[in-house]
Amino acid sequence: MTRFALTLEFDGAPYMGLQRQPHGPSIQQHVEEAVHAITGEQVTLHAAGRTDAGVHALAMRAHVDIEKAIDPFRLMEALNAKLRPEPIAVLGCAIVPDDWHARFSCLGRSYIYRITNRRAPLTLERGKAWQVSAPLDAAAMHHAAQHLVGHHDFTTFRSVHCQAASAVKTLDRLDVVRDGDGIDIHAAARSFLHHQVRSMVGCLVLVGRGKWSGEDLKAALEAKDREALGFNAPPDGLYFAGAVYP
Amino acid sequence: MTRFALTLEFDGAPYMGLQRQPHGPSIQQHVEEAVHAITGEQVTLHAAGRTDAGVHALAMRAHVDIEKAIDPFRLMEALNAKLRPEPIAVLGCAIVPDDWHARFSCLGRSYIYRITNRRAPLTLERGKAWQVSAPLDAAAMHHAAQHLVGHHDFTTFRSVHCQAASAVKTLDRLDVVRDGDGIDIHAAARSFLHHQVRSMVGCLVLVGRGKWSGEDLKAALEAKDREALGFNAPPDGLYFAGAVYP
Repeated sequence: MTRFALTLEFDGAPYMGLQRQPHGPSIQQHVEEAVHAITGEQVTLHAAGRTDAGVHALAMRAHVDIEKAIDPFRLMEALNAKLRPEPIAVLGCAIVPDDWHARFSCLGRSYIYRITNRRAPLTLERGKAWQVSAPLDAAAMHHAAQHLVGHHDFTTFRSVHCQAASAVKTLDRLDVVRDGDGIDIHAAARSFLHHQVRSMVGCLVLVGRGKWSGEDLKAALEAKDREALGFNAPPDGLYFAGAVYP
Repeated sequence: MTRFALTLEFDGAPYMGLQRQPHGPSIQQHVEEAVHAITGEQVTLHAAGRTDAGVHALAMRAHVDIEKAIDPFRLMEALNAKLRPEPIAVLGCAIVPDDWHARFSCLGRSYIYRITNRRAPLTLERGKAWQVSAPLDAAAMHHAAQHLVGHHDFTTFRSVHCQAASAVKTLDRLDVVRDGDGIDIHAAARSFLHHQVRSMVGCLVLVGRGKWSGEDLKAALEAKDREALGFNAPPDGLYFAGAVYP
């Protein structure tokens, strides 16, 4: 048995999420089926993070265990050939030790959330960003975001479907950067709660529109109450950007 | 009659091109139909440049003449509402003098051609860039590109369907810039021949792969012969980026 670490890029729009779902296609299903087509083996794809329907990845890390002897470069090329025409690509493939685990060895995860702040509907970025028509004050959003950085109980920003044992997490980074009409929100932590990034982004947009102050965001965090939440940003703008390993 | 200058962004993938075509949908047709739905008027859209099937625009400039009194902001909002769900957006709308002409007043046009230089197929950028698997030497491409800058007979880089009276043009800029896997080629001139950017990019990729030297590119230009051409880059990576007016 050889363990292969994969780096996956995908457009999340056509899928119910990364992980297998009974009610629709997933990235996991397509990658597992591609491995089966190449090796004849039934494998399980383990990924650094789960992603919701419509959420994208620039560099999701994952692993599979394969019995058949195969060169990593050849495996990557074969996976990319089998995955066509699905918008899922294997950007990297390497042999890792048997105790390396895409999920459990992961020390840090990062996401980027992309907003396009303009009145005109999206064309080239359709499904790839969240169009917000009202003018956003990105500097105010960045300033307010710093209230969320650090060790906190993120219950307010947690989906009711979240399965994490604890809502206490350490958020390492939450930066809001404007470039023209584009606003990128960079989030990094060891791990995130279900819907945490989209919930935080939803609240930051309330700040950007002037509906919430930074103090309102701080109060929402401290309320530790899902009812204190503004709203969830849509999945279109969310990208799993990277995972860190020892 | 009032002349309105429009700034259009579009995803060219679903269209036969900007200009009306007998055999399929065009950006011109959709914009003209949207104006008709708003004003009841049959107008003609005049654009700074023609674009081929599959070619995109970040900021195409165009104009229409409208009899009905309408505020430019309201016209822009109404056009964007009527254009849905087509991937065509009006980013700007302003009243201009009657002698301002999107095509004939235009003093300069710029394009960006996007290459993604990697072995893995495209996912998020599918239809939005040209994937080139072989490693490209972007510095060599940029160096060779400078042979094309200036006042030349561009017959070599001209489509057999080109309707321009003369193949002599002045290319103001042809820059090749790498950022990770992405290579952007920036081209600017007063005007371009049909297929000129895609032809130049095709030849630059031959240089980037080491199949052509800079001298080969110079010789192809000086041959003034369509047969000397390497090949045309696909439309997916081409974006009309901007137009300059007095």
